[in-house]
Amino acid sequence: MANEKKLVEQITPRDVDFAAWYTDIVKKAELVDYSSMKGFVILRPYAYAIWENIQRLADGLFKETGHENVYMPLLIPESLLQKEKDHVEGFAPEVAWVTHGGSEPLTERLCVRPTSETLFCEHYAHIINSWRDLPKLYNQWCSVVRWEKTSRPFLRGREFLWQEGHTAHATAEEAREETLRMLDIYAQVAEEYLAMPVIKGQKTDSEKFAGAQATYTFECMMQDGKALQSGTTHYFGDGFAKAFGITYTDKENTLRHVFQTSWGFSTRLIGGVIMTHGDDSGLVLPPVIAPIQVAVVPVAQHKPGVPEKAAEVAALLKAAGVRVKLDDSDQSPGWKFAEYEMKGVPLRLELGPRDIEAGQCVLARRTGGKDTVPLEGLAGTVKAALDAVQKTLFDNAYQNLHSRITVAKTLDEMVAGTKTGFVKTMWCGDEGCEDTVREATGGVKTRCLPFDQTPLGDVCAVCGRPADKVLYWGYQY
Amino acid sequence: MANEKKLVEQITPRDVDFAAWYTDIVKKAELVDYSSMKGFVILRPYAYAIWENIQRLADGLFKETGHENVYMPLLIPESLLQKEKDHVEGFAPEVAWVTHGGSEPLTERLCVRPTSETLFCEHYAHIINSWRDLPKLYNQWCSVVRWEKTSRPFLRGREFLWQEGHTAHATAEEAREETLRMLDIYAQVAEEYLAMPVIKGQKTDSEKFAGAQATYTFECMMQDGKALQSGTTHYFGDGFAKAFGITYTDKENTLRHVFQTSWGFSTRLIGGVIMTHGDDSGLVLPPVIAPIQVAVVPVAQHKPGVPEKAAEVAALLKAAGVRVKLDDSDQSPGWKFAEYEMKGVPLRLELGPRDIEAGQCVLARRTGGKDTVPLEGLAGTVKAALDAVQKTLFDNAYQNLHSRITVAKTLDEMVAGTKTGFVKTMWCGDEGCEDTVREATGGVKTRCLPFDQTPLGDVCAVCGRPADKVLYWGYQY
Repeated sequence: MANEKKLVEQITPRDVDFAAWYTDIVKKAELVDYSSMKGFVILRPYAYAIWENIQRLADGLFKETGHENVYMPLLIPESLLQKEKDHVEGFAPEVAWVTHGGSEPLTERLCVRPTSETLFCEHYAHIINSWRDLPKLYNQWCSVVRWEKTSRPFLRGREFLWQEGHTAHATAEEAREETLRMLDIYAQVAEEYLAMPVIKGQKTDSEKFAGAQATYTFECMMQDGKALQSGTTHYFGDGFAKAFGITYTDKENTLRHVFQTSWGFSTRLIGGVIMTHGDDSGLVLPPVIAPIQVAVVPVAQHKPGVPEKAAEVAALLKAAGVRVKLDDSDQSPGWKFAEYEMKGVPLRLELGPRDIEAGQCVLARRTGGKDTVPLEGLAGTVKAALDAVQKTLFDNAYQNLHSRITVAKTLDEMVAGTKTGFVKTMWCGDEGCEDTVREATGGVKTRCLPFDQTPLGDVCAVCGRPADKVLYWGYQY
Repeated sequence: MANEKKLVEQITPRDVDFAAWYTDIVKKAELVDYSSMKGFVILRPYAYAIWENIQRLADGLFKETGHENVYMPLLIPESLLQKEKDHVEGFAPEVAWVTHGGSEPLTERLCVRPTSETLFCEHYAHIINSWRDLPKLYNQWCSVVRWEKTSRPFLRGREFLWQEGHTAHATAEEAREETLRMLDIYAQVAEEYLAMPVIKGQKTDSEKFAGAQATYTFECMMQDGKALQSGTTHYFGDGFAKAFGITYTDKENTLRHVFQTSWGFSTRLIGGVIMTHGDDSGLVLPPVIAPIQVAVVPVAQHKPGVPEKAAEVAALLKAAGVRVKLDDSDQSPGWKFAEYEMKGVPLRLELGPRDIEAGQCVLARRTGGKDTVPLEGLAGTVKAALDAVQKTLFDNAYQNLHSRITVAKTLDEMVAGTKTGFVKTMWCGDEGCEDTVREATGGVKTRCLPFDQTPLGDVCAVCGRPADKVLYWGYQY
């Protein structure tokens, strides 16, 4: 058990230093490693397997709703990036520039894609001609580069993996519907798969995506009360279509511009999972996305029959579709217990000689508690236990989110409320009030205008002028 | 039927101009589009779906054999690339260089990864300490950039999608085994999934990968007799381990260097599928990787009951795990027939009012021939027909490959034989003979030293000196 204690001791407790706790987890759970590329991280097998699970599930939802995957070039000519004015202003300051190919200087600089609106638009201008070609519902899984000054694994860095959906529609209404449909799909990914409850809404103008007419968001709350903006969907109107000449002839043979959207989420979600569910013993993973759902740990495995039975149980669970790992290495059970706790494996199954004799095993939940259960009907028992862990994680996170939302009527109340979570206020709509709050709090920003706009009053909590908008505020990652 | 003729007429026949035929297919089957990024292509949904199928199947084989996926940074510092001398010499002339991040010039140039050996090595040096940490069997799915002077979709370009496996082992023997194991898995992907028969063997020293001690390859033959080098596996010995300081302590507590491999295949395989199976009506896809396995085309769909029955049949096939597309658009059946021929859909299912009355439908195979089959037991019939198409494609390609291999005893015979396919000769082992053949033929290179080295004689076909090696030669893409 000495090893077990050692592992646990190496993590900073959350209430001592939440940021240090986070950094400890990403290293001890073997999620990332650093390389000589400053600001970039290596996604190790365990982190990448989490991403693959998120990707597979989300990709299924995208395809069910008619989306198709494509792959666009990694590099964008500077002249193409500049075609939409707001867009280039938003991204040019933070891109990496390729200036040489082999030993030759290039005649035009190329940026490593920070996002691919411009490439999709150029392609759409080629392939969209008639109403028959619409809608185009494309998505891309790739990495993007943004030359950030600071970095934290998953949360902020110079490269991250993401998906970017880009769609073109015949009408503004259809494009708006798409923007909201994808927001709902994102919320489903977050709530059902990642057990992260969300607040959905629209971003204020100051927080919109570069080039968008409207940006929608789902905001999650971490255990420390800060927000993680986890994914956004954008309605572009026909702004990009006009800049790139994307037109179609409708059924009456009239030439029209298309209306567009884009939407993306990234490996940032993994950072969200860590900070939503993790505890002082390590990572805690929702079963739906956990690379290992059950760790089978034989106890007294030198005893005859133990390794065989453990292998049999693992094979049985695997055949039932459970992601199982049998750890029959020569490490001690205590070492293994600590290892799978650190890695956030939802269930640990312990099996020793006496268990086998009694036809039972021990199931320990990463969220706490353990039960002795019969080997008979084990697959069903395990699946029910996985469902229970998933539900516990969502319920705890829901409780954390809603217990940390306060309604504020004044700037003082806002300053107080944002120390522990989100604040909900009335707002006049003036960007000046956003500046005032950010300065008064040292960083609080607007989260979103929630879709439920039931008034909390009739004056702005910041300036006292008449107000008809309900708005969430909070610190953010 | 006018539309049908029009589509077909637009393809250059193979025997008129094979290269023009290829270019026609990639455009007409909607596989790629071009962008303002010269040398880069856009993979459209149909091509990307083929890649996703290849990726899913190959990834399954990789994981079954214990490999794990990771993600490494996109960019590599120049100093890291330079650590292994042969490797940097091979790649530095063809990389794209990032010199600016945002508005700041960088202190060190970064190259966009042309391959990631150096990053994997740096990571392995961090994480490998003990024999317990071995083997490391990692793989990465990503895109790489090589600043090629010429480009053809899938075959050669400045960016392509691929997988790159990188493994580290305790002994040279284990690493050699891995190199050959992965070559076998590649051959399985090619033969069983892509219906492309292979010749496996070792590359001559002049054709080895930069930094490798040995490179193994599987070579496929296109319909025009030229080779497509489709995937390679490399044995590195401990050369990279010494350059990067990758060591471990063995069970006797002795510090040792690891032995390494790498292996990769790319979207080039899609080019191989096109040139192996395509015909003058368009693409022909092996059912195992076809995005659409069966196109259901209702005939006289204005007649009552036809659309409903077509939808029912499509749903039934989908439920049986067949990738099916119901085309109930208002295009004519003839237009649809030509469309799915062009796209290489393995089976077309036609269903009209008389068929429905008789409880049957028509199944047309993309490889030729059609049958009237009962609707009863249709899923089984369709699956058997898909298997038959897969087998026909493999058999045809196998026949093409083996009918175009000639044994040559002299340079004249080699010049003649390589005009139609591969030539097999005895070889003395001298690189000078490779140069002689390349010059005499205007481009023929050695394909591989096949694993079956049964002698064909005892003198080199090029120089007449004693020879104990059997070698394949041929033109290549």
